[in-house]
Amino acid sequence: MKTIIGLDELRAARLFLKGTVGLVPTMGYLHEGHLSLIRRAKEECDHVVVSIFVNPTQFGANEDLSKYPRDLERDLSLIKPLGVDFVWNPTPEIMYPTGYQTWVEVEAMTRPLEGTMRPTHFKGVTTVVAKLFNAVQPHKAYFGQKDAQQAAVIRQMVRDLNFPIDIVVCPIIREADGLAMSSRNKYLEGDDRKAATVLFRALSAAKSAYGGGERDAEKLRAKMKEVINAEPRAQMQYASCADYDTLEELDVVKGKTLLSMAVLLGKTRLIDNFVLG
Amino acid sequence: MKTIIGLDELRAARLFLKGTVGLVPTMGYLHEGHLSLIRRAKEECDHVVVSIFVNPTQFGANEDLSKYPRDLERDLSLIKPLGVDFVWNPTPEIMYPTGYQTWVEVEAMTRPLEGTMRPTHFKGVTTVVAKLFNAVQPHKAYFGQKDAQQAAVIRQMVRDLNFPIDIVVCPIIREADGLAMSSRNKYLEGDDRKAATVLFRALSAAKSAYGGGERDAEKLRAKMKEVINAEPRAQMQYASCADYDTLEELDVVKGKTLLSMAVLLGKTRLIDNFVLG
Repeated sequence: MKTIIGLDELRAARLFLKGTVGLVPTMGYLHEGHLSLIRRAKEECDHVVVSIFVNPTQFGANEDLSKYPRDLERDLSLIKPLGVDFVWNPTPEIMYPTGYQTWVEVEAMTRPLEGTMRPTHFKGVTTVVAKLFNAVQPHKAYFGQKDAQQAAVIRQMVRDLNFPIDIVVCPIIREADGLAMSSRNKYLEGDDRKAATVLFRALSAAKSAYGGGERDAEKLRAKMKEVINAEPRAQMQYASCADYDTLEELDVVKGKTLLSMAVLLGKTRLIDNFVLG
Repeated sequence: MKTIIGLDELRAARLFLKGTVGLVPTMGYLHEGHLSLIRRAKEECDHVVVSIFVNPTQFGANEDLSKYPRDLERDLSLIKPLGVDFVWNPTPEIMYPTGYQTWVEVEAMTRPLEGTMRPTHFKGVTTVVAKLFNAVQPHKAYFGQKDAQQAAVIRQMVRDLNFPIDIVVCPIIREADGLAMSSRNKYLEGDDRKAATVLFRALSAAKSAYGGGERDAEKLRAKMKEVINAEPRAQMQYASCADYDTLEELDVVKGKTLLSMAVLLGKTRLIDNFVLG
């Protein structure tokens, strides 16, 4: 399995891939969630390309770019058995050379939820994903449902900009106790790690209420907040019950619905979600 | 020659084009300048697609969208002899459906020159061109040097977003008296039409000075202004002597340089340019 760095080298390698190509864009530090995307791509496509790039433009000024966990060697050893055609691991200078000045922005859908906390985040995400799409020219691209708003934003970008790419959103992979897998979980220690199951418990409580017939979105939000607030180590940032496609907050639940939340545990920010309907 | 409207129909037709595809994006009301792009594409590519779409998002609130000249039947009759594979003529609703919210923006390079007069123009241009590129998936795309800043902005967008597309910029086609061809020339009547040669004369005067050894960019700008100001019907908006790639105003001319200007003749706004070096 080849690791490619430069864009010219990538384009040359891409020309050899005949048939359908699946792209799995990642920021590395892979866990079982990423691997599930790669396996799904392998099942559905003739060829699979994995990108590993910690994209600086999606980190805010006060966020953890320099501390974001990296371990390329371990990533490559995890990918190798899966039969990927190649890994693209460009440098920031390749992706954003001197004079770089072009941005792709999705508007309304990037403002609520993560957007309220991270106002420049999705501009960085959509820009880098557009670049990855153009560079790799995949037929399908694989994203995790874990970053639910990101998945919705990318589906909107693809529709709006006419990218001829199927976006496949794969289920969240969880630890045995329900914690959604995330590269950032490594920051969780001791009691914070134990308390981190509160997101899963809060979502489960709201889902139970929904299963019992509750359709008042505000009551589902309140249910999630109640569970989070009962955990003294957890500080809630938002709890949302929104339309799955538009991410607009609902009054009454009907159709496909996203329950989502962001919670601080110490300095670690965790997000999680369930889809209803 | 087929005229296609819908995006699905376009994608289906695109699948039948084997070999290289050239795209000529237009807003219709074709003149010899457009036809020169189509002929060039035909020479260089196995297949040629022409798009005709008067893109609403590149017109400002006070600009001439509703009055922009349209004549599809005449356009098609001009294209037909050239052996184009098909014409894509989408509706505004196809390009910008309800809920549309994604924009492609090139920053620094869109601010001077046309950008000072038309602050939202290039955002509309880069967005629609990105959409056309993704929908048609051409190997080459053809633009006129007449819209020099547009060509520079699109080359920058293609570099920045990794579009695997060669941008071919073709020379300005002029009337016998030097007026650069433009769909907007139809607005020029009588004495304004005669006075419109002032752009060509001003650019020629600056080029002569350059040919005589002048390298002071401010003196070349002054030379253009002098000629424009001597024409009582003309009102100058800008006269620029800038780096060809970055569009930054120069102090001293060296390397490839863009002389460009915008001039009002009555209510009609004309632009023109020469490339030096």
